[in-house]
Amino acid sequence: MTQTRLKQQFEFIVEIDKLKQIWRQTHLTDGSRPENSAEHSWHIATMALILAEYAPAGVDLLRVIQMLTIHDLVEIDAGDTFCYDLKGNQDKAEREAIAAQRIFGLLPPEQGQQLRDLWAEFEAQQTPNALFAAALDRLQPFLQNLKNQGGTWKQHGITLEQVIQRVEPIQTGAPRLWEFVLESVQTCVEAGYIQQTRESHHSHNSR
Amino acid sequence: MTQTRLKQQFEFIVEIDKLKQIWRQTHLTDGSRPENSAEHSWHIATMALILAEYAPAGVDLLRVIQMLTIHDLVEIDAGDTFCYDLKGNQDKAEREAIAAQRIFGLLPPEQGQQLRDLWAEFEAQQTPNALFAAALDRLQPFLQNLKNQGGTWKQHGITLEQVIQRVEPIQTGAPRLWEFVLESVQTCVEAGYIQQTRESHHSHNSR
Repeated sequence: MTQTRLKQQFEFIVEIDKLKQIWRQTHLTDGSRPENSAEHSWHIATMALILAEYAPAGVDLLRVIQMLTIHDLVEIDAGDTFCYDLKGNQDKAEREAIAAQRIFGLLPPEQGQQLRDLWAEFEAQQTPNALFAAALDRLQPFLQNLKNQGGTWKQHGITLEQVIQRVEPIQTGAPRLWEFVLESVQTCVEAGYIQQTRESHHSHNSR
Repeated sequence: MTQTRLKQQFEFIVEIDKLKQIWRQTHLTDGSRPENSAEHSWHIATMALILAEYAPAGVDLLRVIQMLTIHDLVEIDAGDTFCYDLKGNQDKAEREAIAAQRIFGLLPPEQGQQLRDLWAEFEAQQTPNALFAAALDRLQPFLQNLKNQGGTWKQHGITLEQVIQRVEPIQTGAPRLWEFVLESVQTCVEAGYIQQTRESHHSHNSR
């Protein structure tokens, strides 16, 4: 019985190795290659520990870290959907729900259910834990793009409005970090990393 | 003052991105490429959450995860030293101590000191937390090699004695997982993934 349980847990542990092959749009800070979702998950879990002092009241750090380590596992089946890809985002929720069923289903039933609940809590974005986790999830690629001369923003001609919409969860989930983010966005607009408006991007391209 | 503190923390967060470029000897389970230390750190932190029920009394899960997420950061300066490389292991401790000084030194002083202490606790291998963390650190490449037809064991002609010595910390830090490990080692010897003795490896090569 216990041996079966352990075997299921090891099956899950080996299966999630595949997250190392899910490539995100965001590049490493030196721009040399895209980062994968396993590295990204490590980075934001570590950020949770470093930035714990800015967490709003009611945040349980261990639960946030649990959330961050498993929040992207559904991508093993559903793939990483680029945040600015409107079409890909239409059926994202459905694809990810099926993936959660299979992947967390490898675990002993009650443990699988716990992780599915944790993932659902992250996706629902209603609790302080989920909101703080999401803030870190948005902050990490933001910092990467900041260090990477605009990275994916520049590559895809992302506008100020789109960036603000993307990082807005930081204001909600980690308000004490928001002032820094806004200042940095302004710097990036001035440096040309972020397009002021869609029009200015188009006119720039037509030149 | 607070802004300076936050800037130091963000500097650290961006700096540790470099862990994604430190390549380990262990390969992904499909054998397609080596894994890097950031992915590895994510994998073992997630394992700590999945296998928490097997942790010995006195283990603080949050502290273990903190340890696991930062335990390899010194490799950013000191590189990854292959566990079976005797020469590289001679000055490993000295190289890593200098690295810890620089990397954790990017943080606000008292936070940097906390992380240096955490890293030193892991290295010293005296507390239940450090011993459990080390057990997971050894278990992960073990499971990868198991799924990967012997992986680095086969590639380097590693013997049963060497493997047992390498995984022994699992017996100490997570004794409830030890029986499974021993059974698996036996299976790997039978499958030819692990050489029974150094002699049998040599005679095999000379054939």
